[in-house]
Amino acid sequence: MQSSSDIALANRLAQAAGEAIRPLFRGEWSQEQKADRSFVTEADRAAEAAMRAILESERADDGIIGEEYGTRNEGSARQWVLDPIDGTTSFIAGRPIFGTLIALVQDGWPVLGVIDQPITQERWVGQIGNGTTFNGKPAHVAACKDLSDAVLGTTTPHQFSGDDVDAFMGVAKAVAERKIIYGGDCYNYGLVASGHVDVVIEAGLKLHDYAALVPVVEGAGGVMSDWLGNPLDAGSDGRVIALGDAARLEDVLEAMG
Amino acid sequence: MQSSSDIALANRLAQAAGEAIRPLFRGEWSQEQKADRSFVTEADRAAEAAMRAILESERADDGIIGEEYGTRNEGSARQWVLDPIDGTTSFIAGRPIFGTLIALVQDGWPVLGVIDQPITQERWVGQIGNGTTFNGKPAHVAACKDLSDAVLGTTTPHQFSGDDVDAFMGVAKAVAERKIIYGGDCYNYGLVASGHVDVVIEAGLKLHDYAALVPVVEGAGGVMSDWLGNPLDAGSDGRVIALGDAARLEDVLEAMG
Repeated sequence: MQSSSDIALANRLAQAAGEAIRPLFRGEWSQEQKADRSFVTEADRAAEAAMRAILESERADDGIIGEEYGTRNEGSARQWVLDPIDGTTSFIAGRPIFGTLIALVQDGWPVLGVIDQPITQERWVGQIGNGTTFNGKPAHVAACKDLSDAVLGTTTPHQFSGDDVDAFMGVAKAVAERKIIYGGDCYNYGLVASGHVDVVIEAGLKLHDYAALVPVVEGAGGVMSDWLGNPLDAGSDGRVIALGDAARLEDVLEAMG
Repeated sequence: MQSSSDIALANRLAQAAGEAIRPLFRGEWSQEQKADRSFVTEADRAAEAAMRAILESERADDGIIGEEYGTRNEGSARQWVLDPIDGTTSFIAGRPIFGTLIALVQDGWPVLGVIDQPITQERWVGQIGNGTTFNGKPAHVAACKDLSDAVLGTTTPHQFSGDDVDAFMGVAKAVAERKIIYGGDCYNYGLVASGHVDVVIEAGLKLHDYAALVPVVEGAGGVMSDWLGNPLDAGSDGRVIALGDAARLEDVLEAMG
């Protein structure tokens, strides 16, 4: 079970990650390219190390699944899933629309999530069944009566290949072209929770990319699913849909073909 | 000629635009779709009206070319070119990476430019021959020894059609895929001036979209050109390249094919 002490801990993890990231933003940092061709910087590593130090000290029995430093206590029913910088490309480019992602996954299901933007100091905290806050105040998704009115977000067209291109473009054609935002990574999902973006469609996400997003979006009244409309758990295939207005899920799935 | 009083005036225009935009960001505003299918909101109109009121009061002889309210004194050698919100899609989506653009164009050449982000309170001010500042401090582009190291930015893939797609993709293939940032509009050009982004390639820009960018990027030591490598003036075709390291211009043009 998650508890109020888990929320307090998650907030402290986000704070620690932010303190590691802020001094390096638009500064000097080492970087290298990983096997999956994505980049990792000194800031990613420092932020994850800061979070792991707290968890190892205070939650010795819980598991950790971290993007940069791997797993600990794999058998635990409670797993903290950490992405120190989701949107490293934006971090490298000096854009304040990346985020630190922190999730608590219970028996394979994300139950608590944090999206933290340490430069603009914006934080979304969501709990399944207990609401989402944005900087401490309740966050709510927006109604979307018709897909043609929707703001659609996705990070990069390069994440889609093969039939996935057609699926994404099906939705892109259903919305107004000038209401599609590119870039943004996790930040776009926070904007869904706050009612500014209506739909986000992505592919190729890993557990550390999407686990924290689910409680944030769903706690605010939205829905997240895979591309078949099924709920996201630790075994999902990385194709995700986030919707502010759950009533549009059928329309999105239909537009994806 | 531009003068220090023009710089002071440009700063006051940016301030006035920001005061009109900030209360509406992530709030309630009316919107409509224009003939070119882009959206305009109450915030765009309020910001341009605030800037025009100052210019009409203090520079009665100068011309104005504004995105939303058109031209005044078309025959004047000095033209103030205004885009109250460049990146209206980001404004609508609640992302603080749009900007107010203010340019002074003298005899068809942009000589003074401002990129102002009113939410994060970031402002680039550039003058041809007299440097660029970021929040009052000198801004400088970064060296880029090889295109394969470059951070490449562009706002949306939908701006490219026909052969332009191949030209953009030529450069995209020359850089690391995970160093391409999408979204960002004018904000990406500010990041070129500050040395965080190396190349921006776009098409379909209008004078109010690119006039302010030229003094900001070139004042910081970079170069802007059209897709043939020619300098940008009031008659350019809207295809632009911004480069932090001018030594990479031949490589970019070659990659574009």
